[in-house]
Amino acid sequence: MSATLAPPWSAAEFRAALYALEPSYWDRHPFHQRLHEGGLDKEELRLWAANRWYYQRSLPQKDAAIVANCPLPEVRRQWLPRIVYHDGADGSPGGAEKWLRLAEAVGLDRAEVVSERLVLPGVRFAVDAYLDFARRRPWLEAMASGLTELFSPGLLAHRLGRMRRHYPWIAEDGFAYFTARLAMVEAEGRSLLDLVVKHATTRAQQQACVDALAFKCIVLQAILDALDYYALSRSTPA
Amino acid sequence: MSATLAPPWSAAEFRAALYALEPSYWDRHPFHQRLHEGGLDKEELRLWAANRWYYQRSLPQKDAAIVANCPLPEVRRQWLPRIVYHDGADGSPGGAEKWLRLAEAVGLDRAEVVSERLVLPGVRFAVDAYLDFARRRPWLEAMASGLTELFSPGLLAHRLGRMRRHYPWIAEDGFAYFTARLAMVEAEGRSLLDLVVKHATTRAQQQACVDALAFKCIVLQAILDALDYYALSRSTPA
Repeated sequence: MSATLAPPWSAAEFRAALYALEPSYWDRHPFHQRLHEGGLDKEELRLWAANRWYYQRSLPQKDAAIVANCPLPEVRRQWLPRIVYHDGADGSPGGAEKWLRLAEAVGLDRAEVVSERLVLPGVRFAVDAYLDFARRRPWLEAMASGLTELFSPGLLAHRLGRMRRHYPWIAEDGFAYFTARLAMVEAEGRSLLDLVVKHATTRAQQQACVDALAFKCIVLQAILDALDYYALSRSTPA
Repeated sequence: MSATLAPPWSAAEFRAALYALEPSYWDRHPFHQRLHEGGLDKEELRLWAANRWYYQRSLPQKDAAIVANCPLPEVRRQWLPRIVYHDGADGSPGGAEKWLRLAEAVGLDRAEVVSERLVLPGVRFAVDAYLDFARRRPWLEAMASGLTELFSPGLLAHRLGRMRRHYPWIAEDGFAYFTARLAMVEAEGRSLLDLVVKHATTRAQQQACVDALAFKCIVLQAILDALDYYALSRSTPA
């Protein structure tokens, strides 16, 4: 039976289908493993920070695209704080600014990061695909793609501990992005899950949300693939 | 002086600026080098053919997006045969069909290729970025991105010779894509160059065309980066 004709999953079944994607999350990617084991040299750490910047800088546009596609004022009101979270407001730094501070803490020049000169093509194409997805797909699917938040609390806590231990030369202020994110991501993920479960009422919509989350996992993996290829190419004789 | 204010290049200067990008073409990519030296095993050769399929299948949509953005009937008339070239007409096989025959000749199942199951995420994102470029950028820039045709005749001839020598088990019919392409690409590239030179009349347009060609070179490199990463990951202990 095609997903269009099948009866909707129960909320529990739908949640289980979403959580079943956790093994596709990028926490176990070889590049992240090296990062967390202290295996990155300073240049690789900088490359990681400068490339992840391109993802961070794209998130407010991604979230604005979702708002632009959503006809429900109560949902738009719920989503708008995400744009503020990235961009900041009233002089208080947002997530993007905090990521720039991490980039500086690992030794990058802020202007060089913002210029995007260090962004690898594979990273750019993957992130742009995510932004294009948010622009072109229904708002519910684009929101569902953000359900990687369900998987990230463990990764964030693990990374913070490992980075403090293996890269002790990074000033504590550099970790502000992670500490701020850790303080809220679990609640944000739960509230996003509730929203997706509430609005995906047909089986076709539920399946499209699962597919959107799978797509997002592939985007994140592709970002690390590009970084890892760059690292492997440098260390492999031609 | 910014490109917007600078006087236009002469036709010769503009051509030189475009040809100066030849070193960025993908002919010398490590993955292509292995392909041409006979260094790919059958699985890698199949992966290459199945992934390149995703590029081939996207070209008629890319060309249709250009036609859709172009207000000049004489240019649309000139561009339309490219769609026919890929898709075929009146029962005669187009470029896409010929690529499928190459895929079959290296041992792939046609249905598996068309299903896109073997397409690597990095390849998909790079090709989709190219399609998005054609949809969103002015038609002249999107056409200029196709000027890689200026660089490809040498690569096509070289590849045909090397593949016949190193992979003699590939039936000659499998090479129909390359022989057909070789017979026309030089003339097509020249006529595209004339068209771009004719319509890019300001320095800003000329510079945008050079940038578009540089972008296309990056797209092609990223396709091979993703293939090469997959191959390196397989052969590198975790």
